[in-house]
Amino acid sequence: SQGLDYDNIENQLFLEEERRMSPMGFRCLEVSRWVVCGLIGFLTGLIACFIDIAVENLAGLKYEVIKRNIENFTETGGLSISLILWGGFNAAVVMLGSILVAFFEPIAGGSGIPQIKCYLNGVKIPRVVRLKTLVVKVFGVICSVVGGLAVGKEGPMIHSGAVVAAGVSQGRSTSLKRDFKMFEYFRRDTEKRDFVSAGAAAGVSAAFGAPVGGVLFSLEEGASFWNQMLTWRIFFASMISTFTLNFFLSIYHKKTGELSSPGLINFGRFESESVEYYLYEIPLFIAMGAIGGLLGALFNFLNYWITIFRIRYIHRPCLQVMEAMLVAAVTAAVSFTMIYFSNDCQPLAPENSEEYPLQLFCSDGEYNAMATAFFNTPERSVRSLFHNQPGSYNPLTLGLFTLTYFFLACWTYGLAVSAGVFIPSLLIGAAWGRLCGILLASVSPNASIWADPGKYALIGAAAQLGGIVRMTLSLTVIMVEATGNVTYGLPIMLVLMTAKIVGDYFIEGLYDIHIKLQSVPFLHWEAPATSHWLTAREVMSSPVTCLNRIEKVGTIVDTLSNTSTNHNGFPVVVESAGNDEPGKLCGLILRSQLIVLLKHKVFVELVRSRLTQRKLQLKDFRDAYPRFPPIQSIHVSQDERECMMDLTEFMNPTPYTVPQDTSLPRVFKLFRALGLRHLVVVDDENRVVGLVTRKDLARYHMGKHGLEELQLAQT
Amino acid sequence: SQGLDYDNIENQLFLEEERRMSPMGFRCLEVSRWVVCGLIGFLTGLIACFIDIAVENLAGLKYEVIKRNIENFTETGGLSISLILWGGFNAAVVMLGSILVAFFEPIAGGSGIPQIKCYLNGVKIPRVVRLKTLVVKVFGVICSVVGGLAVGKEGPMIHSGAVVAAGVSQGRSTSLKRDFKMFEYFRRDTEKRDFVSAGAAAGVSAAFGAPVGGVLFSLEEGASFWNQMLTWRIFFASMISTFTLNFFLSIYHKKTGELSSPGLINFGRFESESVEYYLYEIPLFIAMGAIGGLLGALFNFLNYWITIFRIRYIHRPCLQVMEAMLVAAVTAAVSFTMIYFSNDCQPLAPENSEEYPLQLFCSDGEYNAMATAFFNTPERSVRSLFHNQPGSYNPLTLGLFTLTYFFLACWTYGLAVSAGVFIPSLLIGAAWGRLCGILLASVSPNASIWADPGKYALIGAAAQLGGIVRMTLSLTVIMVEATGNVTYGLPIMLVLMTAKIVGDYFIEGLYDIHIKLQSVPFLHWEAPATSHWLTAREVMSSPVTCLNRIEKVGTIVDTLSNTSTNHNGFPVVVESAGNDEPGKLCGLILRSQLIVLLKHKVFVELVRSRLTQRKLQLKDFRDAYPRFPPIQSIHVSQDERECMMDLTEFMNPTPYTVPQDTSLPRVFKLFRALGLRHLVVVDDENRVVGLVTRKDLARYHMGKHGLEELQLAQT
Repeated sequence: SQGLDYDNIENQLFLEEERRMSPMGFRCLEVSRWVVCGLIGFLTGLIACFIDIAVENLAGLKYEVIKRNIENFTETGGLSISLILWGGFNAAVVMLGSILVAFFEPIAGGSGIPQIKCYLNGVKIPRVVRLKTLVVKVFGVICSVVGGLAVGKEGPMIHSGAVVAAGVSQGRSTSLKRDFKMFEYFRRDTEKRDFVSAGAAAGVSAAFGAPVGGVLFSLEEGASFWNQMLTWRIFFASMISTFTLNFFLSIYHKKTGELSSPGLINFGRFESESVEYYLYEIPLFIAMGAIGGLLGALFNFLNYWITIFRIRYIHRPCLQVMEAMLVAAVTAAVSFTMIYFSNDCQPLAPENSEEYPLQLFCSDGEYNAMATAFFNTPERSVRSLFHNQPGSYNPLTLGLFTLTYFFLACWTYGLAVSAGVFIPSLLIGAAWGRLCGILLASVSPNASIWADPGKYALIGAAAQLGGIVRMTLSLTVIMVEATGNVTYGLPIMLVLMTAKIVGDYFIEGLYDIHIKLQSVPFLHWEAPATSHWLTAREVMSSPVTCLNRIEKVGTIVDTLSNTSTNHNGFPVVVESAGNDEPGKLCGLILRSQLIVLLKHKVFVELVRSRLTQRKLQLKDFRDAYPRFPPIQSIHVSQDERECMMDLTEFMNPTPYTVPQDTSLPRVFKLFRALGLRHLVVVDDENRVVGLVTRKDLARYHMGKHGLEELQLAQT
Repeated sequence: SQGLDYDNIENQLFLEEERRMSPMGFRCLEVSRWVVCGLIGFLTGLIACFIDIAVENLAGLKYEVIKRNIENFTETGGLSISLILWGGFNAAVVMLGSILVAFFEPIAGGSGIPQIKCYLNGVKIPRVVRLKTLVVKVFGVICSVVGGLAVGKEGPMIHSGAVVAAGVSQGRSTSLKRDFKMFEYFRRDTEKRDFVSAGAAAGVSAAFGAPVGGVLFSLEEGASFWNQMLTWRIFFASMISTFTLNFFLSIYHKKTGELSSPGLINFGRFESESVEYYLYEIPLFIAMGAIGGLLGALFNFLNYWITIFRIRYIHRPCLQVMEAMLVAAVTAAVSFTMIYFSNDCQPLAPENSEEYPLQLFCSDGEYNAMATAFFNTPERSVRSLFHNQPGSYNPLTLGLFTLTYFFLACWTYGLAVSAGVFIPSLLIGAAWGRLCGILLASVSPNASIWADPGKYALIGAAAQLGGIVRMTLSLTVIMVEATGNVTYGLPIMLVLMTAKIVGDYFIEGLYDIHIKLQSVPFLHWEAPATSHWLTAREVMSSPVTCLNRIEKVGTIVDTLSNTSTNHNGFPVVVESAGNDEPGKLCGLILRSQLIVLLKHKVFVELVRSRLTQRKLQLKDFRDAYPRFPPIQSIHVSQDERECMMDLTEFMNPTPYTVPQDTSLPRVFKLFRALGLRHLVVVDDENRVVGLVTRKDLARYHMGKHGLEELQLAQT
């Protein structure tokens, strides 16, 4: 089964190493952890910087060319050629990105947040933190954004940060076949998980300029056991990441050393005067939160069905690429149509922030307001919606934009391209939020004083994003940090909470839906509330395959090769006198450890005969980590099958156990708090009666009609 | 021993109640939790509001009277009368506050943060969350601040919030002898701890206008097991708390409904233009962090010796009151002297923010700059240092102020008054930080562009505070939220980290010193790194008193009365055949549970004879919580001593256990992650061989020379 193991590393070899280590050694380790976190932050910041500059230049080039083309054809007629140019360009770029994802690394598709959530939760998804994934992710996201899809470049940063962390912390790259012989101590699941948390945080931090938000994101999604030192390191990585991004962007923008600019998305500065809000606005905010929750639920519901459809019918890579191209072309066509038929002309102010104002059929000195929303990278559109003067958009423009962009974004998420859903959600929300602000100002005569459309755009953006992804604490902090102003803390929190409550009533959050569709054994925060009547006896797998402390090699090979059980951890028992009675527990050993033992042929007979042979060391396990070979690849001769293996030194001699009557919530708490993967159930004589795995726990789920059991994938 | 129990509540009674409860019941519970958190936030905000308004008015009155007096005597001569008036007034007010603390509730002294840290860590300090403590705390802090001591009103808010939480969540007040029959489900350590976390967060939030900082404070100091829903509730309480404070203060300041004002201390708005910083300033910031760490270590070192002195010689309440009065008088005298001899006259700008400008010997239209720092509440002084125009203070003033205030604050912390150390630390730091800024500007000709003294005052304040209290993550966020600007995130973090690293090299943080002086079994985040060679066998208490499942009342009474062991949890064993062999574990029962059983005379014989008597219910345990009577108060007759008690229903039938060879770090992790108080050590036949308590773990400590054992109080 897929799973990461955060506990069962304490065997005799490990303890001996720890005992040998001096206090100085531990201090060095601690320093290396900080160094690794600093590196993670730095590299994540660099990647963010690269993506930002690449997108800015390529998108700028594209909009410049198309703008000139449109301007030419507006006078002479024949705008359909512009449409074809635009659509063709988008489709071509998206095809590139989609081919990368669909053919080379499907796991790099989407935002990567569900995958990282699973990883931090303890579910091992193959290839999710490999270098190849990172490369595909980075180039994929550039193609998606430049290709004009309704996507953002922020979500993928989180995945990128996680991959960087997994790579740097291990001091080697298996893809590149390079081992720097560094950080070997960190080659185990616990340490790696901690660094991946730091990487995810650094990714959030670079994406939104939100270091605290990043830390909270990591904790909200991943950590179950809060550790002060770990949290500081995560925070450090986050800070270095934003800092690096700021520093290099400041050089790029020729303002070297001015470190006050934020992350990839920049909500712009909300001025102190315009950010005030009044008590009577709170109910309005809450109502908007409810709208966000409803729209979010609708979004998730539609996307759920699209995803089901995709799983059934669009699983071949070439079909996936074609769908992505289709979406790109349709996006361009819809945008073009909307701009073409819009007659929302606005005067072109000299200080106007639009970079690509389209005049189209407007009179001179005016520009098409619909184009501000469609003919721009989504990040810029969000900023325009937040900060443009009241009156920059007419309500019809905003309404139509919300409607079309909603469906485009919904269709886009889940395509075989690397792309995030944060920015499209913010954009949809900002559009209808601004609409709300305008309507309020028109309904109430004195509302124009307080109903600043920018403020309502911000609230709408929060509501929509909260309704789709359902995060609260970390999202509040991310939004606050991205606006650079703490004043909106309370309204944003209320809005996000309302959106979550309303949305949860209908359907889960978008990431949870996608996790569920993968049917992985994902553990939530707590056992279902009504599960106290279930005990370990009922949830455990039984009978369980046990190994003797000194076991025949043949038995071990057969056990590992048995595909029907396919367990990853085996209780080790003292040989019992009676054969039908279960043995007394004396340890726990992992499949991966057994495979290393078999590979090195650590058999009692051989060790005795070849006294000169070096003892198996912890290093051998670390070198094999994390890609242990499958049992099929290990050749054991018929003679060797008769040898014996002594597991004493390699098993975890003190696995955590529970009695049979332990209630599910207690078992669950033990799993969650200690990051267990296997928990041995013993009777009152300390005899093994069963084994609880992550999957046994993940099955139970609180449905509408009480406790329900889920079907999980048999992998 | 002192301890809170977060685990051993799952006995048969509890499980039966949980099983009877419908999904609807659980939902109601969840809603009540939110309601309770909302109430906690609301009441904490109200208390903060009350303290703020009381201090503002009383201090205003005081400064007004003294100012008029000084102005009179400046012309006529005889300023010594002003000094006597000032000193006498201060001493009188402080006496009031000190009498409250010293005679009525000594636990209400100080900031309360060490006590709350202990409580959240799982150490039970008597009377720390009682109503009486709250009342003394609130009036005490008003007296301290109005009495002109070098203290802040912020620290005590954290304690106040915690008390409010403990009270509200239990739905009754033992002091007032009122039981509202509400929230009875929450009458147990786990739930209460969660609410106290929320209360502490609400306190931070109200004190600094920092809801996110409050959440992080709670997590950094308290929670070991991160739970998403809990964190949201804590965040909710924090938000409501700031919101309530803002709302009522906005009414008080006659700007009803303008919710944009922050917490008790308000660092004022750092304008966007002046907040920028450059890469080359980073080393300067780090150097200031190091200075902060050094000065903080010096502060802590001096305070440590003063505290030792106080413990030895000033333990009688009347002496404590006299010391407090002495400090108050000296503070006034020193302030007066400093102001008197200062010749730092500054022009009185019309828009000047000083509320009580003292002219003294300055010419007309000028005021004494030293008085801005001394003749003011510390909160206002901090704000002046952050925001007054460059040139408002001359360097000599700042240097002298730093020096005197440093020693005053150091002497003041630990007095028998209710007061916090946050603001004095900030003030000291702001003063020398501003001094640094001025010196920088004078050294380098073009530095005046970037070396804004206000910015350096902020950095200095962070460095000094970090050097004294050694928090990093939560403090960074608190500072960022209090400045209302996220730009300073990175510098503040770097400064706090440097201050911590430098300070930790010399001596622990102030709160940790005070916790250590109380010698309570405080568990840190992780077991000492070099403790892998220690096993449960070495750390456990052994032999351990076990009870039989069906035990004679006399034995139980004797066990509980035995003052030499004084354990709080007893393993329950199946009666073993052989007498010298330890019994097989079948459960764990707490002293408090046994006392309730004895009080209700739940004896096998009586239950049989009085069939009509109602069964003992969970409610009986909850009603007795948390002030279980001592065993001495329970009368058991000689006849009753011969009766038997059946513990089956009341014990925890599935206590967590570990084998004897489990390493200390694993035991530690189990304790910390699950909030255990007792962990049974068993042999491989499941027989009890020992018991690990919190105290057994807290003994081990990483000293300069490797692992050290501490002496802990025998209570």
